[in-house]
Amino acid sequence: MISEQSQLDHQMMHRALELGRRGILTTSPNPAVGCVLTQNNRIVGEGWHQQAGQAHAEVNAITAAGAEAKGATAYVTLEPCSHFGRTPPCVNALIDAQVKRVVVAMQDPNPQVAGTGIANLQKAGIEVQVGVLEAAAKALNPGFIHRMTTQLPLLRLKMATSLDARTALANGKSQWITSAAARSDVQFWRAQADAILTGADTVLADNPRLTVRAEQWPATRELPTPLKQPIRVVIDGQNRIHDDLQLFASEAPVWLIRHTEANASRHPHCHQIIVKKTADNKIDLHDAMLELALREVNLVWTECGASLAGALLQQQLVQQLFLYQSTQLLGPTARAALELGEFTELSQAPQFIITDRRTIGSDNRIIATPKQEQK
Amino acid sequence: MISEQSQLDHQMMHRALELGRRGILTTSPNPAVGCVLTQNNRIVGEGWHQQAGQAHAEVNAITAAGAEAKGATAYVTLEPCSHFGRTPPCVNALIDAQVKRVVVAMQDPNPQVAGTGIANLQKAGIEVQVGVLEAAAKALNPGFIHRMTTQLPLLRLKMATSLDARTALANGKSQWITSAAARSDVQFWRAQADAILTGADTVLADNPRLTVRAEQWPATRELPTPLKQPIRVVIDGQNRIHDDLQLFASEAPVWLIRHTEANASRHPHCHQIIVKKTADNKIDLHDAMLELALREVNLVWTECGASLAGALLQQQLVQQLFLYQSTQLLGPTARAALELGEFTELSQAPQFIITDRRTIGSDNRIIATPKQEQK
Repeated sequence: MISEQSQLDHQMMHRALELGRRGILTTSPNPAVGCVLTQNNRIVGEGWHQQAGQAHAEVNAITAAGAEAKGATAYVTLEPCSHFGRTPPCVNALIDAQVKRVVVAMQDPNPQVAGTGIANLQKAGIEVQVGVLEAAAKALNPGFIHRMTTQLPLLRLKMATSLDARTALANGKSQWITSAAARSDVQFWRAQADAILTGADTVLADNPRLTVRAEQWPATRELPTPLKQPIRVVIDGQNRIHDDLQLFASEAPVWLIRHTEANASRHPHCHQIIVKKTADNKIDLHDAMLELALREVNLVWTECGASLAGALLQQQLVQQLFLYQSTQLLGPTARAALELGEFTELSQAPQFIITDRRTIGSDNRIIATPKQEQK
Repeated sequence: MISEQSQLDHQMMHRALELGRRGILTTSPNPAVGCVLTQNNRIVGEGWHQQAGQAHAEVNAITAAGAEAKGATAYVTLEPCSHFGRTPPCVNALIDAQVKRVVVAMQDPNPQVAGTGIANLQKAGIEVQVGVLEAAAKALNPGFIHRMTTQLPLLRLKMATSLDARTALANGKSQWITSAAARSDVQFWRAQADAILTGADTVLADNPRLTVRAEQWPATRELPTPLKQPIRVVIDGQNRIHDDLQLFASEAPVWLIRHTEANASRHPHCHQIIVKKTADNKIDLHDAMLELALREVNLVWTECGASLAGALLQQQLVQQLFLYQSTQLLGPTARAALELGEFTELSQAPQFIITDRRTIGSDNRIIATPKQEQK
């Protein structure tokens, strides 16, 4: 039996999640959070976090509720913060507003502060309940949670291939293997990322912009204004990225990951990040990811060549594979989507759990998680 | 507006299709057919065709209806036959039973007799309506219809591959890339075929039985008893198939497709079919398919190696691709699922229309039709 109270709690938390979801393209490096204040089962205030540095969801909801915040129940999708960051702690705001009860979907994922906000609320005599729609709340901030728990960004690897996992003919011809609908879908996923990662080979061969294209934005989704452009991150182990590239046509930052410093770009939004190198003089990809996380990159969207894709997978730096499969067979002489070395046992081959599978235009889109990532 | 009569016609034809479907594993080379007789919107007789040589659906329904057949409406999923075959024509049976009206889902697909049954009924003063649930009726007998209209069997090519379209590691290790559920699903599709086609290379390398396994029959489907075993057809251009193979452990026929006769097998259920050869001394696959159709093979289920699979596709002999994709990545050094030659333009690569896509166990199953086959 589900009690009336529990049903109401779920309903209100659903609303809070809906509000929080509005921020998924704008709040990073902060998490997207939604908050609802109720009095006698009636919503008296709603709020969501819009952008780092601006008010948190709880404060927005308290402001909206005005005098009705006193004695209210607050539904928050994430444990309220108890520390002074860019804004004062939300726990204080809730105590000051004299709310009676706080329902929290999930604890703070940062193990160093998890539970502190809840404990402070309880110390102030506020009833707290935790875990309502926790899974949905976790799905709201995959990158933030991953960074808080692993000190690495969550990495999504996108591959657009033929039905037989090829990206180009042997002679290199490849453009637009997948459909316009698939390329449009990609814009939405790019926009969710803090950084779009690629390799110098791809940049030099294709001269891509790697921006989110408003004109290709999916018709089924609202176009955010302004459209926040992710940082473009290029693995550039041989210092080959030069200024005459389309990357620099956009004002969004370009970060060049190198293991030795080179002449700085004349572009003010281009930065070098110097990381460790491997024994064979390549970029230490794990170190590169650590450096990105230190710079508050929660979520990385990767569109790169077969070599970097294979290396990221084999070094277990990929949390989600986005595989767009077209309806063509390019045959075995065509180029493979990723380099993986040669396995001698089937057990060495990476295994995936498919978490989502759907048709996008005429293509198939598979979202898969490497088995070792599965929790 | 859909009239009441039309609604009733659809409802009764649905039932006739349901009855017809019971025969899909047993009627070949005949089509599966269902029939319902009604009086004043009440079903008075049902029938379906069970096996070639036995009574047709219409006759079974008339027998079931008894005296109530007179003045009835007959719903038949396929145009009633008007010729003497293994049984007398159904058109005569319907006229003799004095039915008042006949509703037919689809005309006979054989262009030489299409419409004759309908015309004969009309000549006898019976009202005839054609085309109710035609698409569903066509889906009931894809192989039969294909053979009648093209003089070739419908060929389904099954491939079980990794997520990157590989069938084995470079060293040959491969067994059971796809899940037990996928292998179980295959039993159902094998059982629908008149013939299971493979190449001598596969037979000699894997020594398969290529039978329908009762013990692997999908739990969600009723196991037909007896389980009819398809003919095993082997492309054996070099006369290499010998008697000491598991193929001969089953009593189901084995047909060896050769271009020159060799010593006959001592197995009574093994036959040679001699077909044309190509300029480079290989089996002329088109001629082989013609020969199978002449022997009333409607539907061929193909499980073969990369070379034969590629040749069948490139010679446009494949009508449906059944692609079972596992959740592993075997990498580019692993063996490809089919040999296709090298394309220099993307337009040369075969394009498919995906007609069905679903999860089978942990695998993905795609059913696709080559674009040139799409009608």
